[in-house]
Amino acid sequence: TAPSKLLIKGGTVVNAHHQQLADVYVEDGIIVAVEPSITVGDDVKVIDATGKYVMPGGIDPHTHLDMSFMSSGTIDDFFSGHAAALAGGTTMHIDFVIPVDGSLTAGYEAYERKAKKACMDYGFHMAITKWNDDVSREMEIMVKEKGINSFKFFMAYKGALMVNDELLLEGFKRCKSLGALAMVHAENGDAVDEGQKRMIELGITGPEGHALSRPAVLEGEATARAIRLANFVNTPLYVVHVMSIDAMEEIAKARKSGQRVIGEPVVSGLVLDESWLWHPDFKTAASYVMSPPIRSKGHDKELQAALATGVLQLVGTDHCAFNSTQKALGIDDFRKIPNGVNGIEERMHLVWDTMVESGQISVTDYVRVTSTECARIFNIYPRKGAILPGSDADIIILNPNSSFEISTKSHHSRLDTNVYDGKKGKGKVEVTISRGRVVWENNELKVTPGTGRYIPMQPYSYVFDGLDKKDATYLSSLKAPVKRAKSSS
Amino acid sequence: TAPSKLLIKGGTVVNAHHQQLADVYVEDGIIVAVEPSITVGDDVKVIDATGKYVMPGGIDPHTHLDMSFMSSGTIDDFFSGHAAALAGGTTMHIDFVIPVDGSLTAGYEAYERKAKKACMDYGFHMAITKWNDDVSREMEIMVKEKGINSFKFFMAYKGALMVNDELLLEGFKRCKSLGALAMVHAENGDAVDEGQKRMIELGITGPEGHALSRPAVLEGEATARAIRLANFVNTPLYVVHVMSIDAMEEIAKARKSGQRVIGEPVVSGLVLDESWLWHPDFKTAASYVMSPPIRSKGHDKELQAALATGVLQLVGTDHCAFNSTQKALGIDDFRKIPNGVNGIEERMHLVWDTMVESGQISVTDYVRVTSTECARIFNIYPRKGAILPGSDADIIILNPNSSFEISTKSHHSRLDTNVYDGKKGKGKVEVTISRGRVVWENNELKVTPGTGRYIPMQPYSYVFDGLDKKDATYLSSLKAPVKRAKSSS
Amino acid sequence: TAPSKLLIKGGTVVNAHHQQLADVYVEDGIIVAVEPSITVGDDVKVIDATGKYVMPGGIDPHTHLDMSFMSSGTIDDFFSGHAAALAGGTTMHIDFVIPVDGSLTAGYEAYERKAKKACMDYGFHMAITKWNDDVSREMEIMVKEKGINSFKFFMAYKGALMVNDELLLEGFKRCKSLGALAMVHAENGDAVDEGQKRMIELGITGPEGHALSRPAVLEGEATARAIRLANFVNTPLYVVHVMSIDAMEEIAKARKSGQRVIGEPVVSGLVLDESWLWHPDFKTAASYVMSPPIRSKGHDKELQAALATGVLQLVGTDHCAFNSTQKALGIDDFRKIPNGVNGIEERMHLVWDTMVESGQISVTDYVRVTSTECARIFNIYPRKGAILPGSDADIIILNPNSSFEISTKSHHSRLDTNVYDGKKGKGKVEVTISRGRVVWENNELKVTPGTGRYIPMQPYSYVFDGLDKKDATYLSSLKAPVKRAKSSS
Amino acid sequence: TAPSKLLIKGGTVVNAHHQQLADVYVEDGIIVAVEPSITVGDDVKVIDATGKYVMPGGIDPHTHLDMSFMSSGTIDDFFSGHAAALAGGTTMHIDFVIPVDGSLTAGYEAYERKAKKACMDYGFHMAITKWNDDVSREMEIMVKEKGINSFKFFMAYKGALMVNDELLLEGFKRCKSLGALAMVHAENGDAVDEGQKRMIELGITGPEGHALSRPAVLEGEATARAIRLANFVNTPLYVVHVMSIDAMEEIAKARKSGQRVIGEPVVSGLVLDESWLWHPDFKTAASYVMSPPIRSKGHDKELQAALATGVLQLVGTDHCAFNSTQKALGIDDFRKIPNGVNGIEERMHLVWDTMVESGQISVTDYVRVTSTECARIFNIYPRKGAILPGSDADIIILNPNSSFEISTKSHHSRLDTNVYDGKKGKGKVEVTISRGRVVWENNELKVTPGTGRYIPMQPYSYVFDGLDKKDATYLSSLKAPVKRAKSSS
Ligand SMILES: [Zn+2]
Ligand SMILES: [Zn+2]
Ligand SMILES: [Zn+2]
Ligand SMILES: [Zn+2]
Ligand SMILES: [Zn+2]
Ligand SMILES: [Zn+2]
Ligand SMILES: [Zn+2]
Ligand SMILES: [Zn+2]
Repeated sequence: TAPSKLLIKGGTVVNAHHQQLADVYVEDGIIVAVEPSITVGDDVKVIDATGKYVMPGGIDPHTHLDMSFMSSGTIDDFFSGHAAALAGGTTMHIDFVIPVDGSLTAGYEAYERKAKKACMDYGFHMAITKWNDDVSREMEIMVKEKGINSFKFFMAYKGALMVNDELLLEGFKRCKSLGALAMVHAENGDAVDEGQKRMIELGITGPEGHALSRPAVLEGEATARAIRLANFVNTPLYVVHVMSIDAMEEIAKARKSGQRVIGEPVVSGLVLDESWLWHPDFKTAASYVMSPPIRSKGHDKELQAALATGVLQLVGTDHCAFNSTQKALGIDDFRKIPNGVNGIEERMHLVWDTMVESGQISVTDYVRVTSTECARIFNIYPRKGAILPGSDADIIILNPNSSFEISTKSHHSRLDTNVYDGKKGKGKVEVTISRGRVVWENNELKVTPGTGRYIPMQPYSYVFDGLDKKDATYLSSLKAPVKRAKSSS
Repeated sequence: TAPSKLLIKGGTVVNAHHQQLADVYVEDGIIVAVEPSITVGDDVKVIDATGKYVMPGGIDPHTHLDMSFMSSGTIDDFFSGHAAALAGGTTMHIDFVIPVDGSLTAGYEAYERKAKKACMDYGFHMAITKWNDDVSREMEIMVKEKGINSFKFFMAYKGALMVNDELLLEGFKRCKSLGALAMVHAENGDAVDEGQKRMIELGITGPEGHALSRPAVLEGEATARAIRLANFVNTPLYVVHVMSIDAMEEIAKARKSGQRVIGEPVVSGLVLDESWLWHPDFKTAASYVMSPPIRSKGHDKELQAALATGVLQLVGTDHCAFNSTQKALGIDDFRKIPNGVNGIEERMHLVWDTMVESGQISVTDYVRVTSTECARIFNIYPRKGAILPGSDADIIILNPNSSFEISTKSHHSRLDTNVYDGKKGKGKVEVTISRGRVVWENNELKVTPGTGRYIPMQPYSYVFDGLDKKDATYLSSLKAPVKRAKSSS
Repeated sequence: TAPSKLLIKGGTVVNAHHQQLADVYVEDGIIVAVEPSITVGDDVKVIDATGKYVMPGGIDPHTHLDMSFMSSGTIDDFFSGHAAALAGGTTMHIDFVIPVDGSLTAGYEAYERKAKKACMDYGFHMAITKWNDDVSREMEIMVKEKGINSFKFFMAYKGALMVNDELLLEGFKRCKSLGALAMVHAENGDAVDEGQKRMIELGITGPEGHALSRPAVLEGEATARAIRLANFVNTPLYVVHVMSIDAMEEIAKARKSGQRVIGEPVVSGLVLDESWLWHPDFKTAASYVMSPPIRSKGHDKELQAALATGVLQLVGTDHCAFNSTQKALGIDDFRKIPNGVNGIEERMHLVWDTMVESGQISVTDYVRVTSTECARIFNIYPRKGAILPGSDADIIILNPNSSFEISTKSHHSRLDTNVYDGKKGKGKVEVTISRGRVVWENNELKVTPGTGRYIPMQPYSYVFDGLDKKDATYLSSLKAPVKRAKSSS
Repeated sequence: TAPSKLLIKGGTVVNAHHQQLADVYVEDGIIVAVEPSITVGDDVKVIDATGKYVMPGGIDPHTHLDMSFMSSGTIDDFFSGHAAALAGGTTMHIDFVIPVDGSLTAGYEAYERKAKKACMDYGFHMAITKWNDDVSREMEIMVKEKGINSFKFFMAYKGALMVNDELLLEGFKRCKSLGALAMVHAENGDAVDEGQKRMIELGITGPEGHALSRPAVLEGEATARAIRLANFVNTPLYVVHVMSIDAMEEIAKARKSGQRVIGEPVVSGLVLDESWLWHPDFKTAASYVMSPPIRSKGHDKELQAALATGVLQLVGTDHCAFNSTQKALGIDDFRKIPNGVNGIEERMHLVWDTMVESGQISVTDYVRVTSTECARIFNIYPRKGAILPGSDADIIILNPNSSFEISTKSHHSRLDTNVYDGKKGKGKVEVTISRGRVVWENNELKVTPGTGRYIPMQPYSYVFDGLDKKDATYLSSLKAPVKRAKSSS
């Protein structure tokens, strides 16, 4: 079992707001002290971090572990997915609960069960896959009793998950009234449907048809629409998987005008490009199929730039692992390829290499975009996302002088492919500590199913601050109703 | 009766592409010659235009004459509306045929009857108020047999005229296949509905509630959406009544990227602001109710600027006249105020004063935005929109040194209000000639019901040029389908 | 000698404002009639244009023929350059007079002499290479007596041609007062100088250093600055050789706000990319050196898009031909490579293929961007730039079903390289007529030195329309001076 | 004298990264503990902060105390200015050292003397008023020996402080090499000069002429230019006093593309508008004269919005106090009115009321924009800008339920005017603590000259993180020099 006492010595401790040379002392899974030169007794395991960065473990805001799909589901569950995450320096994630037959409660309970094998901490968003009064009522239960403070709406997946603007507005209002964050998958589902039909008519049935059927303009459209509807309701909005310049530009524009919009790029969008979908090997090409699609060269760099300066705020993965036999369902029709790529294990390394090693962001920024901002947005800071006395001891030690190489063979996911296969870079997570337990060290995992805990998340995170005042400011600006004599001559 | 021969002497003849000192000779309603120093016999009526501009009569691309509304209808019909138009220098308009019980043919026939009393030339757009296979079929008849080359779709008026994105895409594709121009009324109908309910809940039932319930952001949203869907289908788009910076910005952005989008500001949006809707007198305030609403100060100037440089292309009116007893239907609920303002008579004077007198555009530009561009877009140039040999003799003589004043008392509409009441400015249409007949001179109208003709409009106007090649370019850019071995290892 | 009478039968006659099936009848170098089915006597040479486009000859707004450079000069003079132009369908150009020792008059006289061998019509801009009172005085002479209505200022070429902002403002004001159009070469000369030093320090002395030393951001900067200074003075601005998205975006932004800015892309910027400058063969790489540099892939497409919708208005070449022995001056230092590429012969074909064949613009637009808009801006329309009765008979016949191929071996320039070598496409100028003389037919040139005429250009072209009113509007908007009591307590 | 021990009980302690209910314990001017329920002995002064916010004292990044001007200088010196600051909740500022006869050292020494009477902590920026090798050398001394890590360049004040682009580039490079932050006053000085002459020629000599002579377009121009030049050199840039939408838009654009640009709005730009400059009373109007000028209505709101979402980062004042007798120097010519407004005392209250009370930002954001971000940028965090163990005890207690009113009569500046006179709002700084001393309590100041300390600021603050890597990334992207055979055939 894990030692209850731990000292990390000599490293550079990095929080989003500050970095300093300091030791970190941990007891019973909690950080007790962060100070230079802490001395401890012999019962304390000491880890030398000299020349390395000691940082909050990564928090992945966007994953789909053990998500049902036809008769099976995504291939990484709450154990294998967690193992992979921990090996890559991520110590918490927030997964999307999918309602069961429209029932949020049933969905929640199903995910409770799935998560029993967890070996790291986790939280839940809830996907809203249809809308009715029951759903609206259950949202309140989720927020007030179940620790869920965010709901995702789908503007795509016509005939299945898609909601129209009327329901989106209803959903946004409901979220606002509960202090919960509205999230959107932003693509125009009607147009995607049209695009898919067009491709099939053109005889384009392979994975490249996936990209061609849902171009960036449709993501830009839906992002613009969701932002403006959220503006109209005056509630914060979180845009998941920002994959294109088109979507990013809309977020930038809204933010410049003072609107509270959060943009989440995902690793695949930051470091890959769509050319893989044209790969002559179906298995390879299909492994890159996700929605919105990975875009053409150029989108990656601009998303990185926007992330660097805070136009986009945090990085997810949309880890949604289907192996090649599952992907093969779409061998004759790209519409049947299960959507999703891996990333939960690779995110921390790829963001370091792409953003920090290239000089685009500082190490403190790295902590912000991989961990702290997620914790703040979902209201679990500073319990998570910080190395501060009192915080959970979810900690990684990253050696900036070491290097990493990603390989399907050595990764910890159950997937038989890896969209990042062959990528190398500088910076290596050498140690991962989950609530005080050293779970990854010397390239070895030590994890036990059932050790992960559910982290309930309270509503009204900082993005709601002052919203009531903003509403009041709005109302007082209307100069209405105008007083009029009832009859006018 | 009108003399069959007419000489306009000594004026500056202005076409959109050129202006020159020249005489204009007309026979039997057709321009025969445009040259300096034409000499004619005694049987020719001669009009001296020295020091004045001789220009193509205005063409109003957007009107609603004799449109049914509850038990009555708009108060200007094809006679009174035409009389007003001619008194203001407009010699043709394009009205929107409203289908009858969903039937385009029935709608067309109804408008044929209404237009029997016409005293100037006119054409028709067709409004699409719902969508089904019959409508799709009838569109072809309208284009091929009835001289209609444009169809308007409504993104607002939920529960009535509004179409969703799926149908919008269908409509756009159908238009493209017929060479007909797709038009949109661009406001997010779902959000407008939400906004209206909000206002009523807030106790804001007066005309100011109209503006507050459908802010510019909702026009911007729908404009952005329509543009991107048209882009996705690769068909030209015409945005009617561009009322806000938000919508204009979207048009500018699309055009910069090479997309064929036409933006039609209307006079009310160019010269008025929303403050009238807060007027304490209901009758006054209600007269300014139209959709999208007239916006706050600032939108007007930016729309003018965009018009000056061709970001927006032509000016309409959306003339849709309801008198104050009709408007009074909404005395207790702004949602019941019939939407519409006047303008068919005032457009030419107000555009001159606002755009030319202020130095924002040249006189040739004036002709372009009030007449020629409309004729080109709707494929009736150079029969209309030009002073060239062979063109219809729809001509105005404008004295730049004279002045105008707009007044409810003296206008020629049947309306008992006028949203431009009291406006004065420089530049006066002193003579209007409709197909060779002098119908307005010395501030006197000489018009006869039934003298106006229907001007059928052929499909595939210049905005369709090269579209097939653009489609081909698109297809060849896809590099798809990729050839793949059927089985992948 | 050329027949004095000519009939072009059966073609589609295209003007910027309209295209129609018509014959064109020419006498003594002037177009006499444009009508269907003209019948003529036997003394008239008849050219069959069935199935072809009959269009105004191209006007190249930007060339440098016989420009002095060290002991020699550009290798195409007013004869060889004209021959090349005519073979490519261009029948007029506007060259830049370079002052001699600061004297505009001396410069003008030198160019008068150079142009004696002209075999097509030409006009002059004047470059302003330094600024003082004499220059200011001579500008008036150029405008009032010499037929020059445009002056170019250089924001680059530090230590040589560059003017600072103070002088740029002076120059703009002077232009405005004369009704002459201010033009700018827009790059930040100080920064270019810095960039050049940096490259040399890095050991980058080859042609790629040219591109790297003056990136697009510096063109964007200077374009933004020139536009804003022109705005401040309220005078129209013409930006020569718009090579980058950065510059184009600034023009788009200014135009959207109503400012009168004209953007001239050049063919090399529309169809090439910078990769040539990295070519391992110096001779090849050096032939692509011009300023601002040809940009990376992506700029070309966006410039095309902006041209398609009128954000940019007309296409030039900056034809400035140095052969490879001249270019070799910079073999050890890219700063010494004479700047300039060819294009006067290729422009019409490449614009057709790139813009019309791809479906981006219509044939009428083609005429506008290659001919008419230039004629309008420089105030020689409709003498030039139109096929109208009374216009000069500068006409081309283009066969859209034929094709072209560009080759250094077969081109008519004296250059021993050609940056478009090997380019093929659809559309072929089969006949060129210069003022009634058939100078290019059956791939044969028939030109005689001295047959070209100087076309003086009057000030106050249409871009100045209403500028005085705009100034008045500005002044009345100031609400100043405020009346104040002299002493305030 | 001040007690050496202090306990602030029961308040909400707010840092930029987190807020929590906690007590704050201070000893000897340093914060020792921040925890709930601290118990202390009787020797400790206890302040009850229940229901109030306990926050880091404000840091004003932009002031001009005791700045020489003609025979006198700004009227607030390091004592009166500090007193005013402390009464308003600001506990540190960074003033601009002005070189003496071009000597940085002499300037530094002069400011050392001026600051002897300081009663709160302060740091220094250095203004660069001309450029030569001595200046360049002295910059190194300032950075390495004197604790200065930022240098301001002037793009305006032609003939006096203005530097041209060549020198700006030199200065930027020098700053980069020293790890010092380059700052700019961004207005186009040549154009301002032109504008001033124009106003005088128009007879507009009053304060409104100040605004009219240097419109926002000139601030936008210079901001765009400085940003692009900084980009070209790859060094961070700090834009002081962002007063207009034009400048803000440029900053937003640069940041979106990943560039490190910091924008500092000042209070006057956030809460005032230019209409005051048209005030009929000269004394009043003149008191609002500063550069860049306070802009027209509309700029304020958009600057607030940009501040709310981090497009702009921190708020300054440009406190530069001239009393009405000094301002009267420009009674006949606005160019002679000394430029500057007050604000050091009012900033904290006005930002609270404008940004927090309106709901635009959270309380943590308030701390960030008024204190923490300044400390981070100038590399003194977390000594300043935080309430953390080890930080200086610069603390304020703000009561959100109390209110403030600004009045010339009651303010603590020596000024006889106040541009915020009469402004009221919610939120009141009830206690100010400067390094452990309670200097403001019960509306009473207790300050002693000479108690303020100089806070030296080290170079290479966080905005420089990774810059060397970014340079390396740039270099490796050049793919140059290309290897070429020396002679090419
Ligand atoms: Zn999704
Ligand atoms: Zn997902
Ligand atoms: Zn409408
Ligand atoms: Zn309408
Ligand atoms: Zn040039
Ligand atoms: Zn040139
Ligand atoms: Zn300043
Ligand atoms: Zn200052």
